[in-house]
Amino acid sequence: MAQHNAFYAQSGGVTAVINASACGVIEACRRHDDRIGKVYAGRNGIIGALTEDLIDVSQESDETIAALRHTPGGAFGSCRYKLKDIETHRVQYERLIDVFRAHDIRYFFYNGGGDSADTCLKVSQLSEHMGYPLTAIHVPKTIDNDLPITDNSPGFGSVAKYIATSTLETSQDIASMCATSTKVFVLEVMGRHAGWIAAAGALAGNGEGEPPHMVIFPEIAFSREAVMNRVQEAVKRYGYCVIVVSEGARYPDGTFLADSGNTDVFGHRQLGGVAPTLAGMIKQDLGYKYHWAVADYLQRAARHLASRTDVEQSYAVGTHAVELALAGKNAMMPTIERVSDTPYEWRIGAAPLAEVANREKFMPRDFIREDGFGITETCRRYLEPLIQGEDYPPYDNGLPRIATPKLARVARKLPDFEL
Amino acid sequence: MAQHNAFYAQSGGVTAVINASACGVIEACRRHDDRIGKVYAGRNGIIGALTEDLIDVSQESDETIAALRHTPGGAFGSCRYKLKDIETHRVQYERLIDVFRAHDIRYFFYNGGGDSADTCLKVSQLSEHMGYPLTAIHVPKTIDNDLPITDNSPGFGSVAKYIATSTLETSQDIASMCATSTKVFVLEVMGRHAGWIAAAGALAGNGEGEPPHMVIFPEIAFSREAVMNRVQEAVKRYGYCVIVVSEGARYPDGTFLADSGNTDVFGHRQLGGVAPTLAGMIKQDLGYKYHWAVADYLQRAARHLASRTDVEQSYAVGTHAVELALAGKNAMMPTIERVSDTPYEWRIGAAPLAEVANREKFMPRDFIREDGFGITETCRRYLEPLIQGEDYPPYDNGLPRIATPKLARVARKLPDFEL
Repeated sequence: MAQHNAFYAQSGGVTAVINASACGVIEACRRHDDRIGKVYAGRNGIIGALTEDLIDVSQESDETIAALRHTPGGAFGSCRYKLKDIETHRVQYERLIDVFRAHDIRYFFYNGGGDSADTCLKVSQLSEHMGYPLTAIHVPKTIDNDLPITDNSPGFGSVAKYIATSTLETSQDIASMCATSTKVFVLEVMGRHAGWIAAAGALAGNGEGEPPHMVIFPEIAFSREAVMNRVQEAVKRYGYCVIVVSEGARYPDGTFLADSGNTDVFGHRQLGGVAPTLAGMIKQDLGYKYHWAVADYLQRAARHLASRTDVEQSYAVGTHAVELALAGKNAMMPTIERVSDTPYEWRIGAAPLAEVANREKFMPRDFIREDGFGITETCRRYLEPLIQGEDYPPYDNGLPRIATPKLARVARKLPDFEL
Repeated sequence: MAQHNAFYAQSGGVTAVINASACGVIEACRRHDDRIGKVYAGRNGIIGALTEDLIDVSQESDETIAALRHTPGGAFGSCRYKLKDIETHRVQYERLIDVFRAHDIRYFFYNGGGDSADTCLKVSQLSEHMGYPLTAIHVPKTIDNDLPITDNSPGFGSVAKYIATSTLETSQDIASMCATSTKVFVLEVMGRHAGWIAAAGALAGNGEGEPPHMVIFPEIAFSREAVMNRVQEAVKRYGYCVIVVSEGARYPDGTFLADSGNTDVFGHRQLGGVAPTLAGMIKQDLGYKYHWAVADYLQRAARHLASRTDVEQSYAVGTHAVELALAGKNAMMPTIERVSDTPYEWRIGAAPLAEVANREKFMPRDFIREDGFGITETCRRYLEPLIQGEDYPPYDNGLPRIATPKLARVARKLPDFEL
């Protein structure tokens, strides 16, 4: 059978396990070397394709590719770059096809979230329109867990495990200090408009009084009064209060807590995320001593505490993307289908990109407790399997070993292109 | 031989491994049940002794005590409570002796940092003065690594491993995003006036251009100009800049960066730690997109990523405290003595509390690079062994298993005591 090349690129915010998907794609391509020649990776994502800055993955050893499975971040570089509208900026899409044609790329694997699913679909449509035989497969990834159709998004399980574990651990800390010191601990987590990551913090406890005592979701309008009442109640009843708050927490009018609009004495916008803002309110209203943490990149880079379930699923969507492409499926995305909760069983399915693109999946209301400050048993049943299992990286000299790819550049064949 | 009881209490900020020391003390006491009867733990540290709120550790199973080795936080409760001056508040010290006498406590194990070493010494001196036969041993603990004489402080190795690993992981993240997005990542770490924890961040890289590109120590006066020059240089040369900054970073006049003195439009003190303050300066001076994280309790509670070296040393100072006491040594502290760097070898020593109390150990100037923004090879040789080895807790259902002691209260024998 004829042999053609493949292109792989990473898109948007990276995760602890996006490289496990890269590993899955590349290893599957190598197993199918009768049909897939070289794998070219886009340096810094789709920008690498537009500027013809391609990485020759064939120069990486099997060991380096295997090491991607336990290396956080995006090994080939990712980007926040949304292709513009196809009607007015058709030239960008045509450029992609030009680059693909010049390097005999017939397989396009795009590893990202909702935006990149949309890009992948458009590239597929344009190549068809232009008569260029391209098979475009989207490889799902996002810590935000907001991709539709798939039961969960690769990347989410690991951040969920990190946040649940960190909530459990820090709760042990404050519980031992609260008699004479800190009464309130606020942990700020990512997730944008979706409360999935915040919900994962709730996995740290379940019984009466077990921390966290409150989760603040973006899906529930923030009421300072309701929150303060609950903080006070927890401190009175349990001696302390642990709060997991989503970066996307917002007031009823939609403005974010973090975006306070305050300015300092120099006229600069006040710094700080949700956690310090909320901690400040608690200090002001209730006078409690507080600590706060902002996990930021720590949570999405914490490969050392990845969920084994998540690593396996991230790898599997990578390999199945290649299988889909070789089976002639186009404009599709591998999905994770839940077969059962207990014992947890899953399998890989597939969804047409037309049904995936530009749809965000928020927390269903019945996943959030009536009072808005915790998760329901339905949510717990959904989340628990996703953090199961550990998948430790190897360590050298006390630190996790990371892949160090050569990232050799493919010789260019086309003129420059202005982004 | 006569059998008497022991008292154990945790003091000050807890660590990921202070319970490993508790485990060491209690297991050693159980091995010596011919001489040590019951172990009583102070609920919430020394306050438990003052208020006669004692926990009967004999009611905890061997399994529970073993599980302390992998449980973060302070299992019996800690406190921030410094005994007052012995001359004017002698009544507090006498109360301790009263409680010890009432419960036949002849062994006093106090697990803490510099302040508690001082308390331990004073209790020892007063008991001698009062003719009460008490053997007082201090069990060292502090993430700040600022205890003198001992080569390193139990608790530090684990936070060092966490910060070094997190710096490595987040550097992978920003390196993959920097082409189109975040240029600067700032990680704020603990350590108060000592830069030891910040220094550990530097273990993440060594070669030219390897992150972190800058460490900001409390020991080096902060110069906005010098820092901005370096940030700009790193971004220009490597595409991004990773900064590890100590919470204790300060201006030449001694004021802390975090304590900016700014107030918001409502007249409230500006919120935020060093990281958002520094990130704001970078945005203002250089315009770079940034991310920042404040690890706070996450770093000192992260038992899931403890250093095996640290766990073993924390356990060993616990067992050796008991051995010292049984050998009739009084007012002493087990220390860690370094035998060799490569291969790393250590043994337990001992130091008189009179030499330990009220002395802080800062980073030696020759551990900090000439330019003030990194560590020297001497420092690296010192730090590297301390993060060696992993010591994973067992996991249940995706989360670390923690000890759940009963914390049964000992019947009181004395009248109330006002703190």
